[in-house]
Amino acid sequence: MKHTKFMLSEKEMPTRWYNVLPDLPEPLPPERHPVTKEPCPMESPLPPPLFPDAINRQEFSTERWIDIPEEVQDVYRTWRPTMLHRAYRLEQELDTPARIFYKYEGTSQAGSHKPNTAVAQAYYSKKEGVRRLATETGAGQWGSALSMGCVFFGLECKVYMVRASYHQKPYRRSLMETWGAKVVPSPSPDTEVGRKLLKDDPECPGSLGIAISEALEDAFVHDDTKYSIGSVANHVLLHQTIIGEETRKQMEMADAYPDIIVGNVGGGSNFAGQFIPWIRDKISGKKPDMRIICVEPEACPTMTKGPYTWDFGDAAGLAPILKMHTLGHGFIPAPVHAGGLRYHGMAPIICHLHKLGFVEAQAVHQTVTFEAGVRFARAEGIIPAPESCHNIRVAIDEALRCREAGESKTILIALSGHGHFDLGAYDEYLSGRLQDYEYPKEKVLAALADLPQVE
Amino acid sequence: MKHTKFMLSEKEMPTRWYNVLPDLPEPLPPERHPVTKEPCPMESPLPPPLFPDAINRQEFSTERWIDIPEEVQDVYRTWRPTMLHRAYRLEQELDTPARIFYKYEGTSQAGSHKPNTAVAQAYYSKKEGVRRLATETGAGQWGSALSMGCVFFGLECKVYMVRASYHQKPYRRSLMETWGAKVVPSPSPDTEVGRKLLKDDPECPGSLGIAISEALEDAFVHDDTKYSIGSVANHVLLHQTIIGEETRKQMEMADAYPDIIVGNVGGGSNFAGQFIPWIRDKISGKKPDMRIICVEPEACPTMTKGPYTWDFGDAAGLAPILKMHTLGHGFIPAPVHAGGLRYHGMAPIICHLHKLGFVEAQAVHQTVTFEAGVRFARAEGIIPAPESCHNIRVAIDEALRCREAGESKTILIALSGHGHFDLGAYDEYLSGRLQDYEYPKEKVLAALADLPQVE
Repeated sequence: MKHTKFMLSEKEMPTRWYNVLPDLPEPLPPERHPVTKEPCPMESPLPPPLFPDAINRQEFSTERWIDIPEEVQDVYRTWRPTMLHRAYRLEQELDTPARIFYKYEGTSQAGSHKPNTAVAQAYYSKKEGVRRLATETGAGQWGSALSMGCVFFGLECKVYMVRASYHQKPYRRSLMETWGAKVVPSPSPDTEVGRKLLKDDPECPGSLGIAISEALEDAFVHDDTKYSIGSVANHVLLHQTIIGEETRKQMEMADAYPDIIVGNVGGGSNFAGQFIPWIRDKISGKKPDMRIICVEPEACPTMTKGPYTWDFGDAAGLAPILKMHTLGHGFIPAPVHAGGLRYHGMAPIICHLHKLGFVEAQAVHQTVTFEAGVRFARAEGIIPAPESCHNIRVAIDEALRCREAGESKTILIALSGHGHFDLGAYDEYLSGRLQDYEYPKEKVLAALADLPQVE
Repeated sequence: MKHTKFMLSEKEMPTRWYNVLPDLPEPLPPERHPVTKEPCPMESPLPPPLFPDAINRQEFSTERWIDIPEEVQDVYRTWRPTMLHRAYRLEQELDTPARIFYKYEGTSQAGSHKPNTAVAQAYYSKKEGVRRLATETGAGQWGSALSMGCVFFGLECKVYMVRASYHQKPYRRSLMETWGAKVVPSPSPDTEVGRKLLKDDPECPGSLGIAISEALEDAFVHDDTKYSIGSVANHVLLHQTIIGEETRKQMEMADAYPDIIVGNVGGGSNFAGQFIPWIRDKISGKKPDMRIICVEPEACPTMTKGPYTWDFGDAAGLAPILKMHTLGHGFIPAPVHAGGLRYHGMAPIICHLHKLGFVEAQAVHQTVTFEAGVRFARAEGIIPAPESCHNIRVAIDEALRCREAGESKTILIALSGHGHFDLGAYDEYLSGRLQDYEYPKEKVLAALADLPQVE
């Protein structure tokens, strides 16, 4: 019998997150205060009081291993451990000697990896007496995951959803509402930022940057409310390491070790959740040749075209200033279907590891990603989320290179979720209506002219 | 640690389907030929040559156990075994002493239980040299599962999709096309039946009955084509018994045995796939008190309001005549959101076991099913398919009765799939726009006046 899936029992689920910060060859540059531009002190890294204390401590923790609270483990076990699959059928279809594995996060109730951190953030908030969480969402994946996390711990959840998506994708909103969240189109009349924008333009379609600013304001003005973020931040990446820690055990069951790890990046949390538990072998010199490749859209090429510099995490300049690759916090990318990859910046940990030479970056156009996604679906059955089609594209290309070279490399795909919410995008691809977007150099240059001045 | 999920390894996956036919206390009435109305001979039960020979043999097999071919097992393992969950959080929310379990089929690539038979039918067809399969689909679950089954075995797949759904739910079509199927709106110009209807009414919205007739005609006129059906038939129920066979092993791991099994029924395949492996204990007298409850919509109350008599499986009278509960093959139910439960008849095995007193039936209105579905989603995270909301409603009612009575019964829910394709229905419910439909007695009486005359 060929082993197609590598499964862990509930008992084998890792009970600690892995924090890469103490193992970095050079320390991560500290975040800067959005107003003073000064380095934030380690004991209070994230001004103003956006997050629960436990999250603030995790953001720059020097502990290598952080216990996953029992209550979070209990909720994780409603869908975790997730499966590691060997893609026999895809290998056969590609006629490649490469061995292809994929770790699939699409079996969570929300259909993606996002609940891994949503549940943890909701738990810590509840524990510290927070009554409600505020967040933003674009296409809806993060907003729905946090809605689920909040309902599990009895918290209210307020989601500022980019107005264009709110109207174009009403069912994402229904998903959040089914889990009990209050969802408003952003800009909304519920915040100062929103009211101002609506006064100038009652039809303002909104943007992720505006939605973040509204959620931040909501948390600032309500004593019982904290802000929650779905990617980029160190603590989010930390929570996602459950993915890679599980995968390590599963690859061992498969008697395999990845030569190449590919993940897509928007803010970078799924990719980092997979590769961070492996990169310690590369940092320590145990596996120096392992390639770790992040893949982004050509239309939003943060890693491959953006400078490595200081920029705000949000559009309005309310969030901390991070050292990262950025296209400028005012940059609004073209409407590619991989909504989760439309972010101007990138997780500082990923950027730092890229600068140090441990992580590679590639950009791809969306049409060829859907071509890869359809090929994957026809071989493995799973319809990948448009985000994941990006790294599947690169994985297939690497597997085909293995065929040319006669090499049997082991490729590990970080598959973040299913595409059942994204069939409109597949429809555009299949009907030949899908368009690619060139890198908008002028727009990026304009946005980069407005970077914060940090010494 | 509380065990939330009961998992089987790939090695523990059952390798045989269980055929209940030889264990029935009374034999199942044989099907009748649609034209001659005569009983079909056992060796060729399904005229004309609709199905591959292996399927024809399975339809009335007297073997208790039928080996699952290795090739089918290999594909099953891309998503099976599926999880059995203990619904701790729902139990707590209901404050019930009842123990609630659910067997969840929503983690298949298609999001439902349908691939269990789609894969088997595609395999047997390929093995016998069939080049393409034709089928019908309403809302799209079955059409998408068969599309996936066909692409796995290199078969063409032609899906006749009810025209109203084709236009209202274009993304279901995209799902099928992603798996390589050819999908046409029914009525279509591709068949005699379709051309005739389109000539009379170019805007004809179609119906499942018309789509079945087109798929049957397609299989009749093309030598290289067979017909494939997603529910009702004995062989479909047989393939679905993998669900209950897995569950038996998993309930044993949980040290539990169901007092009550609840499943929703349209054609009955998911419900039967779960209960048939258990009912042998009830038939043999080992567990005489076990209650097996099927749940259907009030708007399409086949089991609770339809007579147990002879009727065509399809609207046009091309399919075999079955002894079953029916609302009349011309009956078109109201547009309830549980598209999979809108069928005029019911699997003959379920009807037969109901007549013999082994299976109970209940009908519920859709609004209260969504109320239950939302309650389930807020406790367990999973958004249930609208079909499954029906039996979750009854499971919750039984659990609440246990609270009143102080009884700790064990309730097993057959959860057929996720509702990620059905968020529009949740939206209607959450916004208060969802309506219930009373039992349309006059329409049923009219449809029942047109039953085939069988001695």
